[in-house]
Amino acid sequence: MDHPTVIHAVDHAVFAPEKMGKATLFSSPRLLVGLNAFEPGQAHALHAHAGMDKVYHVLAGDGVFLLDGRELPMRAGDLLVAPDGVPHGVRNTSTSRLVVLAVLAPGAHGG
Amino acid sequence: MDHPTVIHAVDHAVFAPEKMGKATLFSSPRLLVGLNAFEPGQAHALHAHAGMDKVYHVLAGDGVFLLDGRELPMRAGDLLVAPDGVPHGVRNTSTSRLVVLAVLAPGAHGG
Repeated sequence: MDHPTVIHAVDHAVFAPEKMGKATLFSSPRLLVGLNAFEPGQAHALHAHAGMDKVYHVLAGDGVFLLDGRELPMRAGDLLVAPDGVPHGVRNTSTSRLVVLAVLAPGAHGG
Repeated sequence: MDHPTVIHAVDHAVFAPEKMGKATLFSSPRLLVGLNAFEPGQAHALHAHAGMDKVYHVLAGDGVFLLDGRELPMRAGDLLVAPDGVPHGVRNTSTSRLVVLAVLAPGAHGG
C-alpha cells in the first residue's frame, strides 16, 4: 500500500498450513494494520504487548478470543480491544477458515 | 469499554439527523477506535490529521471515500488507510445507512 488505496481486506489474508498466517496491510511507527488467518484448529497463543493497544476485528469465520484466562466466542463483525498489557489470543474452534483484522498502536519499532 | 469485552461493532453506531454521528469504542493516548455513522446524503468533509494515521473499515452500506481529490467507491468490508497528512473524507452517496469503523493512532491528546 505505497499510495493510499481501497482494498477489500479479507481478500488479502494469507493462510499457512503449519501455523497462523500473517499479512501486513500498513505499517508506520504509529500503526500496524495486519490480517491474521487461521485454518480450522489453528491458534495464536495468549500473549501481551507492553506499551501497545491492539484492536481485533473479525472479518470472516468464527472462533474464540482468549482474553486473560477467559474464552469469548466471536464471529464476523465482532471487535475486541486488548489494551496495553492485557493477555490475548485467538483460536479457530470452527471447521471453517477464520480471518481477523489486527491493528496495533504504536506500530513498528524500526522495522 | 472499561474491561475488555467483545462487541458487535456495527450495533454501536450512533446516527444523528443533522450530521455524521460519532461513537467512541476505545480511547487511549495510543489509539482511538470509533464509529462514523452516515444517513443517506451525509458526509465527513475532506480533512487531514497532522502526525496521525487513520484506518477506515466499512462495516455496513456503501458510498465513496474522498481521498486527496479523488472519489473512491467503497462497500462493506473495504479498508482504506489515510496516512499522516493525506486528506480524506467519506460521503454516503447511497440510499441506505453507512457505518465506518475509524481507527486513529496516536489517540487522544489529553482528552
